[in-house]
Amino acid sequence: MKKISSEVALSSKNTSEDLPMSVLEAWSSLPNEVRAALVKKEVSVRMDASQTIASSLTKDSVHSATSSNASSNEIEEKQLIEECPESGGKVVLTPLERAPKNVFAFEKTHVEEEVKVTKNGNKLTTTTTKTVSTGRGWRNVFSLPISYDVNVVPHGTLLDPANPQLLHATGPTSEEYKRRFAVIDNAVEELYGDKIRAYFVAKGIELTTVTINGGEAEKRPDAVDKILDELCAYKLRRREPFLAIGGGVLLDIAGMAACLYRRGVPFVRVPTTLLSIVDASVGVKNGVDYCCDLTNDTYKNRVGSFYAPSSCLLDNSFIATQDARNVSNGFGEILKLALVRSEDLFELLESHGAALVEKRFAATPSVPAGVSERIIDLSIQIMLEELGPNLWEYQLDRCVDYGHTFSKLLEMVPGADIMHGEAVNVDGFFCVVLSFLRGFIDMEIVNRIFKCMQSLNLPTDSLDLKSELAWQSCCDAVEHRHGEQRIPLITGIGESICVNDITRDELDRALEMMKEFKHVY
Amino acid sequence: MKKISSEVALSSKNTSEDLPMSVLEAWSSLPNEVRAALVKKEVSVRMDASQTIASSLTKDSVHSATSSNASSNEIEEKQLIEECPESGGKVVLTPLERAPKNVFAFEKTHVEEEVKVTKNGNKLTTTTTKTVSTGRGWRNVFSLPISYDVNVVPHGTLLDPANPQLLHATGPTSEEYKRRFAVIDNAVEELYGDKIRAYFVAKGIELTTVTINGGEAEKRPDAVDKILDELCAYKLRRREPFLAIGGGVLLDIAGMAACLYRRGVPFVRVPTTLLSIVDASVGVKNGVDYCCDLTNDTYKNRVGSFYAPSSCLLDNSFIATQDARNVSNGFGEILKLALVRSEDLFELLESHGAALVEKRFAATPSVPAGVSERIIDLSIQIMLEELGPNLWEYQLDRCVDYGHTFSKLLEMVPGADIMHGEAVNVDGFFCVVLSFLRGFIDMEIVNRIFKCMQSLNLPTDSLDLKSELAWQSCCDAVEHRHGEQRIPLITGIGESICVNDITRDELDRALEMMKEFKHVY
Repeated sequence: MKKISSEVALSSKNTSEDLPMSVLEAWSSLPNEVRAALVKKEVSVRMDASQTIASSLTKDSVHSATSSNASSNEIEEKQLIEECPESGGKVVLTPLERAPKNVFAFEKTHVEEEVKVTKNGNKLTTTTTKTVSTGRGWRNVFSLPISYDVNVVPHGTLLDPANPQLLHATGPTSEEYKRRFAVIDNAVEELYGDKIRAYFVAKGIELTTVTINGGEAEKRPDAVDKILDELCAYKLRRREPFLAIGGGVLLDIAGMAACLYRRGVPFVRVPTTLLSIVDASVGVKNGVDYCCDLTNDTYKNRVGSFYAPSSCLLDNSFIATQDARNVSNGFGEILKLALVRSEDLFELLESHGAALVEKRFAATPSVPAGVSERIIDLSIQIMLEELGPNLWEYQLDRCVDYGHTFSKLLEMVPGADIMHGEAVNVDGFFCVVLSFLRGFIDMEIVNRIFKCMQSLNLPTDSLDLKSELAWQSCCDAVEHRHGEQRIPLITGIGESICVNDITRDELDRALEMMKEFKHVY
Repeated sequence: MKKISSEVALSSKNTSEDLPMSVLEAWSSLPNEVRAALVKKEVSVRMDASQTIASSLTKDSVHSATSSNASSNEIEEKQLIEECPESGGKVVLTPLERAPKNVFAFEKTHVEEEVKVTKNGNKLTTTTTKTVSTGRGWRNVFSLPISYDVNVVPHGTLLDPANPQLLHATGPTSEEYKRRFAVIDNAVEELYGDKIRAYFVAKGIELTTVTINGGEAEKRPDAVDKILDELCAYKLRRREPFLAIGGGVLLDIAGMAACLYRRGVPFVRVPTTLLSIVDASVGVKNGVDYCCDLTNDTYKNRVGSFYAPSSCLLDNSFIATQDARNVSNGFGEILKLALVRSEDLFELLESHGAALVEKRFAATPSVPAGVSERIIDLSIQIMLEELGPNLWEYQLDRCVDYGHTFSKLLEMVPGADIMHGEAVNVDGFFCVVLSFLRGFIDMEIVNRIFKCMQSLNLPTDSLDLKSELAWQSCCDAVEHRHGEQRIPLITGIGESICVNDITRDELDRALEMMKEFKHVY
């Protein structure tokens, strides 16, 4: 017991002055709304929970006190006191003996003031009633560590038995069971199935696979269930990673299954399309479209979770077997990243995009060596920089949501033949026009972007993009982004801001202006 | 750029010596296997990711170096180097400009040594081949902060409009929409539905509810879908908390829906049964039983996730409207906690359990004031102490898994009329016998526990507990607990250890010995 109290004493000595400036800066850079939500939940940002509560949340109002609780006066327990300057209330936190960094018994005091003005003839009387309520309970504080590597595999070597990366990523070879489980995209199975099997045969590993149709229309709960069924039958263990090989749809479905099976098993992502290499493989989101029995509507990515992969393995050689439309589709997300964050990347797309689509990223004399690699590297870096510090999306203003406001409904129009990157591009060009109408960019930039989109063979408009759909998209955004539109627009190539006040009239004017462009797709 | 490099420089000065001892201790207390897995994933434990990587993972082998990369020699960038003493490999991490705490470009060097002994006549030649492979990519490091309060509401006041706790827990009243969404257990709806509605009417809030059958047999994906459908129709916003009121089954189903809808919305738990007050309300696990189409078996809690509630509100007055069997059922989990952690709690159950079952925790002259509150408080504290530091179950040896090895299959026997706490108790007594057979406890303790279980009206055996089921349970445990049985046994009342070497013969001898007890249930 003495040991524990001295430990607590030790950590309560570390007040906010000892926190690295960077942490304090990060905290103060959050928007008020987010900080309020976090303070309400008294969120910990460090494993040393007692320090967190003491210093990072109510940093100016913390003292340590000695418990005067009569029933436990034999033990001098260190307590932490949080004060709420607004309400005058406070919370006294006492660490529990066996989990002093994570669990605290608390006593809360809440003060509510009610001011009443009564009129008696000509006399105004003001009565202030102060209600002090108390409560007790326990607080559980925890910090979940997340870390994963996105590995660039030497071009074309992922399925070469001489390269052990695929084997190593899915578990040590020294384990008693020499087996692996893989979820494979149908299209990948057709093109690479034999090679994948040969790889594991060469490594002396028994491979079990399930194939999933990776089309957008198949991104439904049924596909997740199919994987869960196979995992049950395979008896996958709690810490045994499985492989997911395919495009973005497959990776999203597999990620959701990984999150749910046994409340989470490790999984390794191998993206096989340009789009998934720069998008689905990089972050921690998974999910499926959900058809609601009550409204009979299907909602894009409405059901899913945040769940990190164990690692990702990128081999750009897979792109060579995609068709041109799919490569263009990938450029939809890459161009989006360029628009909101990088003129350099935009210039690379302007100069070399068309040739890379045509050649499917294969070497060609018309594109200097290293350009295709640089385009993918830049895209992943930008994506990671934007996602990395905001992985669970506490911050809802996100420039990577550019092109993801109107595209959701465009993709869900029944019978629509539009791919994700294409829809993002239509949305993206619509937002270029909105940006122009607000005076954020001039016509020269609009035309330059339009030309680049055309050179990438990406659609810039859609027959489904109508007034009603556009307005409904804004309403859905308010719902999903909690109360604000938070629609990213651009203020130049590589610069963006989020706006919250787009009107239906503004949308209609933009739609009108869209007609002035010669959309050739 | 200069600002960033100085910031990184600042944090890379903090080496492992600056880490609190408690963190280092926590690290070294982890089992080798867990540490190995964590090191492999280079897991961060603090928000300041550069510090983490530098100090907490490879604490003795970190230096900071100045990049000598020719292409970027204009900028003096701080890098972090991790070395792996075993393989001789290393990882050089360079923070990305816009996310220097979370994203790092890396270069990995991996060294593999192969020793070959060749025999040429009488001559043995040893050849050592050293293969150095390099790789590059990016590492994303993040620390997800979790914090939630388990609030004890004054007895019987939760649904009293004079108590604002229920209203406040589900969101500020100042929000523009004055509405709430609640998922309610059928049984609770019947008993308390009008009171719940009256509460929100009194607060001027429009309440929308969906009722879910809280029976064990209904703990299936369909129930989650029912909630998801209602949430879609209600258009619940991304940061809008919903309420879940009911027993453990309902809370597990609602928690899974909260995790999945829009990739996670806040939810508030109100447990209404003794079992859920001490069990489902306290932790972060949710889930449903899953029927596999391929094997045609149903697996207990096979599908779900770890997802924290925003908060929990406990009002013990709900217990009064449970029937005696349900109250006993709750004591199943409480007795388990007593057996593995607290003789004090066990003595309270021995002395007062029977009266509390009979009176459903209502005041009675035969039980001193404060006893029922103390039993619940102790249970929650023990549960939180055990769960708190291990919330996502990185550590798989868990004493709270006592009674949860054989009970899973007992609950899933088709047509079995056994409740969760009852199954835990049958499993718990079987483990008492196993503990006795190993010489961990004497017959006096066995009899004392048996008597206490009987006084609580809990079953101590089941017709379904047979050799085959018991052995299958051990095999399932190895699968779920990744490679080891990790079955908690007791070494006294309030003390436990995990064992990994239970044999089928040992199970059979325990089953034989079970027959010697007069199971009256």
